[in-house]
Amino acid sequence: MDQRADTAEPQQYKVIGTRPIRPDGADKVTGRAIYGADVQMTGLAHGRILRSPHAHAQIKSIDISEAERMPGVLAVVTAADFPDLEDKIANLGEGSVNLAHLGANCLAKGKVLYRGHAVAAVAAVNTHIAEAATKKIKVEYEPLPSVTWVLDAMKEDAPLLHETLHTDAMGQKSAKPSNVAVHLHFSQGDIEKGFSQADLAIEREFRVASVHQGYIEPHVATAHWNSDGHLKIWASTQGSFTCRQQTAELLQIPVSKVTVVPCEIGGGFGGKIAVYLEPVAAMLSRKCGRPVKIVMQRNEVFEGTGPTPGGFMRVKLGATKDGRLTAGQAWLAYDAGAFPGGVIGPGAMCVFSCYEIPNAVVDGFDVCLNKPKTQAYRAPGATQAAFACESVIDELAETLRIDPLEFRLKNAAKEGTRRVDGPVYPRIGFVETLEAARASEHWNAPLEGKNRGRGVAAGFWFNIGLKSSVSAHVNPDGTVKLLEGSTDIGGTRASIAMQLAEVLGIPGEDVHPQVVDTDSVGYTDVTGGSRVTFATGLAAYEAGLDIRRQMAKRAAMLWDCKPEDVTIEGDVYRAHGKSMKFKQIAAELHHTGGGIVGRATVSPEGSTNGFGCHLADVEVDPETGKVTVLRYTAIQDAGKAIHPSYVEGQMQGGAVQGIGWALNEEYFFDSAGVMKNASFLDYRMPTCLDVPMIDTIIVEVPNPAHPYGVRGVGETPIVPPPATIANAIYHATGVRMRELPISPPRLWKAISEKQSAGR
Amino acid sequence: MDQRADTAEPQQYKVIGTRPIRPDGADKVTGRAIYGADVQMTGLAHGRILRSPHAHAQIKSIDISEAERMPGVLAVVTAADFPDLEDKIANLGEGSVNLAHLGANCLAKGKVLYRGHAVAAVAAVNTHIAEAATKKIKVEYEPLPSVTWVLDAMKEDAPLLHETLHTDAMGQKSAKPSNVAVHLHFSQGDIEKGFSQADLAIEREFRVASVHQGYIEPHVATAHWNSDGHLKIWASTQGSFTCRQQTAELLQIPVSKVTVVPCEIGGGFGGKIAVYLEPVAAMLSRKCGRPVKIVMQRNEVFEGTGPTPGGFMRVKLGATKDGRLTAGQAWLAYDAGAFPGGVIGPGAMCVFSCYEIPNAVVDGFDVCLNKPKTQAYRAPGATQAAFACESVIDELAETLRIDPLEFRLKNAAKEGTRRVDGPVYPRIGFVETLEAARASEHWNAPLEGKNRGRGVAAGFWFNIGLKSSVSAHVNPDGTVKLLEGSTDIGGTRASIAMQLAEVLGIPGEDVHPQVVDTDSVGYTDVTGGSRVTFATGLAAYEAGLDIRRQMAKRAAMLWDCKPEDVTIEGDVYRAHGKSMKFKQIAAELHHTGGGIVGRATVSPEGSTNGFGCHLADVEVDPETGKVTVLRYTAIQDAGKAIHPSYVEGQMQGGAVQGIGWALNEEYFFDSAGVMKNASFLDYRMPTCLDVPMIDTIIVEVPNPAHPYGVRGVGETPIVPPPATIANAIYHATGVRMRELPISPPRLWKAISEKQSAGR
Repeated sequence: MDQRADTAEPQQYKVIGTRPIRPDGADKVTGRAIYGADVQMTGLAHGRILRSPHAHAQIKSIDISEAERMPGVLAVVTAADFPDLEDKIANLGEGSVNLAHLGANCLAKGKVLYRGHAVAAVAAVNTHIAEAATKKIKVEYEPLPSVTWVLDAMKEDAPLLHETLHTDAMGQKSAKPSNVAVHLHFSQGDIEKGFSQADLAIEREFRVASVHQGYIEPHVATAHWNSDGHLKIWASTQGSFTCRQQTAELLQIPVSKVTVVPCEIGGGFGGKIAVYLEPVAAMLSRKCGRPVKIVMQRNEVFEGTGPTPGGFMRVKLGATKDGRLTAGQAWLAYDAGAFPGGVIGPGAMCVFSCYEIPNAVVDGFDVCLNKPKTQAYRAPGATQAAFACESVIDELAETLRIDPLEFRLKNAAKEGTRRVDGPVYPRIGFVETLEAARASEHWNAPLEGKNRGRGVAAGFWFNIGLKSSVSAHVNPDGTVKLLEGSTDIGGTRASIAMQLAEVLGIPGEDVHPQVVDTDSVGYTDVTGGSRVTFATGLAAYEAGLDIRRQMAKRAAMLWDCKPEDVTIEGDVYRAHGKSMKFKQIAAELHHTGGGIVGRATVSPEGSTNGFGCHLADVEVDPETGKVTVLRYTAIQDAGKAIHPSYVEGQMQGGAVQGIGWALNEEYFFDSAGVMKNASFLDYRMPTCLDVPMIDTIIVEVPNPAHPYGVRGVGETPIVPPPATIANAIYHATGVRMRELPISPPRLWKAISEKQSAGR
Repeated sequence: MDQRADTAEPQQYKVIGTRPIRPDGADKVTGRAIYGADVQMTGLAHGRILRSPHAHAQIKSIDISEAERMPGVLAVVTAADFPDLEDKIANLGEGSVNLAHLGANCLAKGKVLYRGHAVAAVAAVNTHIAEAATKKIKVEYEPLPSVTWVLDAMKEDAPLLHETLHTDAMGQKSAKPSNVAVHLHFSQGDIEKGFSQADLAIEREFRVASVHQGYIEPHVATAHWNSDGHLKIWASTQGSFTCRQQTAELLQIPVSKVTVVPCEIGGGFGGKIAVYLEPVAAMLSRKCGRPVKIVMQRNEVFEGTGPTPGGFMRVKLGATKDGRLTAGQAWLAYDAGAFPGGVIGPGAMCVFSCYEIPNAVVDGFDVCLNKPKTQAYRAPGATQAAFACESVIDELAETLRIDPLEFRLKNAAKEGTRRVDGPVYPRIGFVETLEAARASEHWNAPLEGKNRGRGVAAGFWFNIGLKSSVSAHVNPDGTVKLLEGSTDIGGTRASIAMQLAEVLGIPGEDVHPQVVDTDSVGYTDVTGGSRVTFATGLAAYEAGLDIRRQMAKRAAMLWDCKPEDVTIEGDVYRAHGKSMKFKQIAAELHHTGGGIVGRATVSPEGSTNGFGCHLADVEVDPETGKVTVLRYTAIQDAGKAIHPSYVEGQMQGGAVQGIGWALNEEYFFDSAGVMKNASFLDYRMPTCLDVPMIDTIIVEVPNPAHPYGVRGVGETPIVPPPATIANAIYHATGVRMRELPISPPRLWKAISEKQSAGR
């Protein structure tokens, strides 16, 4: 089902809102697209990583001599081969990064902090020899006690990962080192007064497990450190320039000495921003003089790369009898993983972001523990927070006997609402989104049958701005070649090209987009934060205006008039009663001074916002605890959907990932900190057989910060699902599940306990 | 020896005139550079071409059925697979091209016109099967009489190649078809009056053989016609956009459906402008759905690609006793090869281009005959013409007992001189070049010993303008990435990057140039006509100004002042007593709006001119006719030498090619029109053992049409050598050689005849 709730002012677009064939389609379906693992070149060496068997241990010594002597081995590296970075901090676009930590996460320095932590790497003539050689590296470990649960890690006697952190579990500075990397505190209004105004207050605790982004394509990097000192990297990355900068910083060489070629990417979801393999492959290449490729295996992806944090959350909300929220309090503790720098920030900003709550306090803790370093995963931190908040909202509404959508509408954030962390919303579309949900066929359809229930939940995510650059070249046949630096994970080649086509008044198919390497386009920040269609789209828009100005000059040259006499409407240029179409002027470029190059660099403010609301019907098998999702609808404000199919795809993909997160996915650790399910056989992600078709309703409340009203859409759809499913399960079973995943044994246990209690 | 005659006004350059390490050096010396034959991809099929065994024949039928059935064969194509182009004319940058002829030269249509003419092509799983399959193609020929000497081809009863040409040997329109494709006639003054004013007139006839450009890398093309209709071509080409347009026109698809990736190129010299393999590989790919690569073998390069024309020339010059030229007359007939469109035009323009001759007439004929289609070869047509003119000049000077350099100086073209074809010279440096020759150590050194002689000759070539585009991106470390569309045959990556560095006031090494594909840069015409350092350099200069303006804006932003307050001197930006260097502003780009993209498209007038003068000392072995070049000096006006090492390299390379042309190289045909020496064993090009070190003297008379005074330098150096060597041989032996090559048997015969006559 494909519904559109067109709430935007009607505007005549020629290209925007249509569904042209995707520009990368043919290469992908015919297997021609070059992914990182497809990179081949003469003399290519193959690298493998030796990883820690311990969750926490001191490295006493590493002896690589036997591995180095092995026939076919070309180079062996450890952290000792890298520059000492002490505590250098670098701003890498999406935030500051401690380079020493980033480096130590690529190859452990002194200590291993999680099972799977990289310790050494080998390059050899083939991957089998490299693999065998890693086993010849003798690492002497002194195992240390480990901790993998956030509340345990906050205890005073917890095993300590770093000596440098001095915040206690209350958020106070302490002389004694701790595992707390960050304590955030946001507040507005008067929290005590707020709760005193409430007729009802509900406080609940929630627990969530770590889950992985689960991209199909494992991490892979090929590096060639040329004899002239230039380093070229072929990477599977969300940000070619970010990868360039991280690698350059870790190797302490100028960024211009590094070229990153972003290969086609088989999923990222936030997990392919930090480098893992790139600097290691580079150093191996420098040592052996050959290009070196390293491809992770799936268990390395699970054990060695970033999951989203597990955590503990306590949320308390107060409301009046007529359903007006008066106060909210949240206490969140998220895994940072092995190194500081988790996603508690956005988690704390998002927990109450859908609602106007006059009095609120949020405390957030970023906590180090013996798990892989937390990385971004689609709306990082928000899904966990929404699971907690939206469960309590649902319980409040139910207790107050108010329809859950009405309750949300009563309290919905709108233009002028101040978020607890400070910003005041511009024009947003949360009310319209909730209204579209209320008006939807799904919400109004009866749900009959035993053990069935319907749930609803909302979600919020930012659009960040950052920097984007594009160039574009007009061909004599009137088509335009577009160069962009934003790696295309979710269809942005199409959404950016279409915006350029719209400005120029030409068909979408006439703009040919291409994602190019870091030498071939202006600086462009990472593909993340739902920014690309918004910010790089803005760059395409500006480049389009630049082209229009130049085309007008050419028309003026042909007509022997002033450029300022030329008016432009769509693809028609007019002056003094004459007119020419874009295509016609393009055909004359060779005679009027040569080709036209358009370009733009933009650095827009972020702050535009995307809201979603999801509906789910579930059926629970009380005998097994298995949950079947019968029907699912995702409703979301896209601002303006440039290519609706891609927007729907984002909404569907996010919903499915959220359903997996709700029901099945989790990092399962044994007491020694070893992940016991590091494969797709044992780590249960949903397949197409596990979910129904995800219905979508696109709401369009234009973003005032973008000429076409675009809001980023990629991340919001993963935020509501766990709460939506949990709320649906409650209505099917009467059981409030407050721990993720709501796996069959856990749900079966809860249902059984309730039945026992009821007897 | 490395001499510079700095005749330019002294100007302080930081980068221009220095000799930074070449940017493509490491990749080339380590074998990493990707040439056309290095292109590999999954499923790559290999193509081979079936070529005509006859110099001239009607094709009665082609039966490909048996070849198609052969196991491993994927596709077979003939001309019948291509669109019918009738007589479409396309402007391909460096001049108009008859598409039907271009197409029929790629695959013969109806008739084969030269031995080696492509007839059909096969793609197979490997090259051996493809080769074997070409032998299964049954072609029924009806052989026709052939002609390979230009004067024979102009006879009324000559075998006729085309039915469409109607010019007779007198240059008159004729009802009867002929082989004369073009007749040019230039004149100025009153030729009869001119000769009547002369005290001495000498008229001589000259004959030259076809020679090949002899690039090390054979032609190669890989094409992939994707299932979405997009055609991607990896080519060894001098002009990626020219290749794109030719291919698109021959296949009758829009240019934007074709992407040409210019691979590293192993020499072109003008011979890699026309397509041969690209459309054939494309059509094979379309038929079999796979990428197809075709690599020529050396004999195919000789027999199937463009040599420079052989021809016949008659030159008459008249002078007064005191050495003033009064009249010149030239009659030139050059091979067009199998199709019209040879290089008679520049030949006719260049024959008298070094001198001020008040009364002159030039007639030029472009004549079709059964040899491969003539292509450009370094100063196309000028070397032949200079051989004739400079031989007569030498004879005039000798007869009038005037020093040959003095004679040339007396008559040298200068600012204001009108060339016979019309243009009037702007500021040129021929006089300065001759003066540098006269002042050179070589010219003033005694030459002793038997059978030794010293020769001198001059030469001229144009700089064409055409269209160039560049883009450039400023990195946060203050370096700049430069994208250009000009394929780099002779070091233009360096010479263009250095011009950009000069504008920006940063070190040459801080600009990193890259030649990119046709999707990634603005339209850029072919690398030819000695235009790239001049015209694409101008684009780099303009892009540099564009960057400076943007950098000034950023500085103004940082200082909170107006951009127009900022003054720029080298890399220092100043306003209101504050100053920042380029590198410092670059480091702030991320905080002031993002990266900076510079761009420029230029379309300068051509017409700037390069003059050279060469000196040679030779020793002739009268027993064998073998000529040893003892010493050789090339003197040339470079306007301003951006990277003197490359300028010297161009002068040396051109001189060596000219020496080969003078002494050994020739297409040797039997009576059936079969080339008997189509291999580097039998076609004698000079090796480093055959020539001395070529000394160079760079003269610098700035070109008024370029901000740094650049004149193109690539072609002029091949113009003087044959005349220089012939004149030296005369002074060694007393024999005037008027046929090229002056091979040992030919020279031995002439010496013997002279000795017999003298007895």
